[in-house]
Amino acid sequence: MTDKLKPLREKIDTIDAQILALLNQRAAVAQEVGHVKAETNAPVFRPEREAQVLRGVADRNPGPLGNLEVQTIFREIMSACRALEKRVTVAYLGPVGTFSEQAVYQQFGRAVEGLPCASIDEVFRATEAGTAEFGVVPVENSSEGAINRTLDLMLQTPLIISGEVAIAVHHSLMSKTGAMDGVTVICAHSQALAQCQVWLNQNYPHVERRAVASNAEAARMASVDPTIAAIASEIAGMQYSLGVVKGHIQDDPHNRTRFAIIGKLQPGPSGSDHTSLVLAVPNKAGAVYQLLAPLAKHGVSMTRFESRPARVGTWEYYFYVDIEGHVQNPSVTQALDELRHNAAFFKVLGSYPTSLT
Amino acid sequence: MTDKLKPLREKIDTIDAQILALLNQRAAVAQEVGHVKAETNAPVFRPEREAQVLRGVADRNPGPLGNLEVQTIFREIMSACRALEKRVTVAYLGPVGTFSEQAVYQQFGRAVEGLPCASIDEVFRATEAGTAEFGVVPVENSSEGAINRTLDLMLQTPLIISGEVAIAVHHSLMSKTGAMDGVTVICAHSQALAQCQVWLNQNYPHVERRAVASNAEAARMASVDPTIAAIASEIAGMQYSLGVVKGHIQDDPHNRTRFAIIGKLQPGPSGSDHTSLVLAVPNKAGAVYQLLAPLAKHGVSMTRFESRPARVGTWEYYFYVDIEGHVQNPSVTQALDELRHNAAFFKVLGSYPTSLT
Repeated sequence: MTDKLKPLREKIDTIDAQILALLNQRAAVAQEVGHVKAETNAPVFRPEREAQVLRGVADRNPGPLGNLEVQTIFREIMSACRALEKRVTVAYLGPVGTFSEQAVYQQFGRAVEGLPCASIDEVFRATEAGTAEFGVVPVENSSEGAINRTLDLMLQTPLIISGEVAIAVHHSLMSKTGAMDGVTVICAHSQALAQCQVWLNQNYPHVERRAVASNAEAARMASVDPTIAAIASEIAGMQYSLGVVKGHIQDDPHNRTRFAIIGKLQPGPSGSDHTSLVLAVPNKAGAVYQLLAPLAKHGVSMTRFESRPARVGTWEYYFYVDIEGHVQNPSVTQALDELRHNAAFFKVLGSYPTSLT
Repeated sequence: MTDKLKPLREKIDTIDAQILALLNQRAAVAQEVGHVKAETNAPVFRPEREAQVLRGVADRNPGPLGNLEVQTIFREIMSACRALEKRVTVAYLGPVGTFSEQAVYQQFGRAVEGLPCASIDEVFRATEAGTAEFGVVPVENSSEGAINRTLDLMLQTPLIISGEVAIAVHHSLMSKTGAMDGVTVICAHSQALAQCQVWLNQNYPHVERRAVASNAEAARMASVDPTIAAIASEIAGMQYSLGVVKGHIQDDPHNRTRFAIIGKLQPGPSGSDHTSLVLAVPNKAGAVYQLLAPLAKHGVSMTRFESRPARVGTWEYYFYVDIEGHVQNPSVTQALDELRHNAAFFKVLGSYPTSLT
């Protein structure tokens, strides 16, 4: 075998030497970019530029490498080059080892300074104060809906959404003992129960299912009652010292949590962007429908719509709306001008490149 | 600014196109390697070869990129190429988002199939049964010493240590409220207290310090007593819902947890390797000293020595010994032959490339 492998490995070594040289050439050019940016105080991290590079390599990738793998490599290349200009500091909901930290790496690569914070509020504070250039906060969880604290803080903050990241989340069936002996009820948030339906029907058709306020609450209940099993993330299971009966039981393997990158930077258009808004209208019949008419009129697609009771102020509800396109796209500019005119409250949270995954 | 940036970005785009082409050339050669290996059922993952590539790029790295950054990029390149041959499945102590998962990525890159397990025992079982090709288990924690369960299981398993990974671990000062008001005692394992001594002297010189069994126990105590603050990892703090008073307080920023990669593969020599052994001798004066004489005689350095009371069997203690070099290095071969002759119990756990960090 060695006879056949040796020439192949020598080929690889030759290619690696070329890649290494090119990586450092690229880094040297990136340093020049840094000097130009420094003259005008321009930001080191340009999410729209990085998104374009990552989409570009996937578009032009001839294979055999997969697009996802190629993007992972280029994310690290950009991260390493960026760190030569300046190591970006990013605040996130700690501790180390959570999904939020994964989201940091997925957006910025590994060559970044992470700043774990004890709460979502603290991530906002650290980013507003400039202790961190960016913050990463969870926005929406496909099994438990919107992260309300983030939505509330978005309303008041001067920060802008500069990017979005989606991370795959897995559900596990867990109990105090890690086994199902003596378990009579499986608890979870109703969305999680629905997402694991097929698997539950096949494996535990006769065990009662009970919807509770959240998967974390289900995990807490299972930790104090041996007749209860919970469906939750393994992170939640660890918090309550549960044993895993079976991991990855959701029917849809694409269950995701979305994170927003918050900061002071408004990225330019990348060619595929989202814009997030918050709106309010007086509470009368048809008001919301009328409010949204300009979007349809200008052919702007809405990708998310979420209402949230107002905790303070004049309006009963705030509407969180995500649309396709960038505020600088003419159709979006026109639609937003009309929306602003109709709405009693109107705030653009930011335009940013759509997440790659 | 745009005028100056544009030509630089075009340069980067040209370089990226070349890198992309080379990455896929490399992948195509790696596929040929895969075909050759398949003919002889040779393993897809060769830790010694990957260690050599990573050391090689660092040795030949002209800059401006740092060695660590270059190694991170090449780890992902090898991971992506390897995934074309076969996606390696790796069992680890779950849940997702722990240091063990980080250790998986640090050894195998992102293009890997992770299999989170509920216990160290289960990681061994999954790897022994072949559900996973490799397992990742914690071996030693620089603040709390050896991970005893791993050592016990190493004694009996037919698996071999095929690699080692070290992950940086940070200590944080934490309390129930996230503040120090009302706190009269700071608890932690004695090693953690020692590691944070300088910081504690500067910041809380008058607060009593108390050594407890482990940092996790300190975190548990702080969770039920508002007069106690704990020094522990943020992971432990999260388990007990503590607030972070201050992160990264250890004096030595290089505090590390070591992990072993276990599997059925004995890597060949990489040029810089460790070998792990377990030994036992009858309990008589000077026996251990005599036992180890062959190492000194053949100039083999010992990097770790750990004794562990036997829970079963004839011997009172087992000695876990790490030495420099590979079992195929002549001096190591000779020293081990003599050791084996002297010892009442002798087991080579494996030879593997030394960790990069």
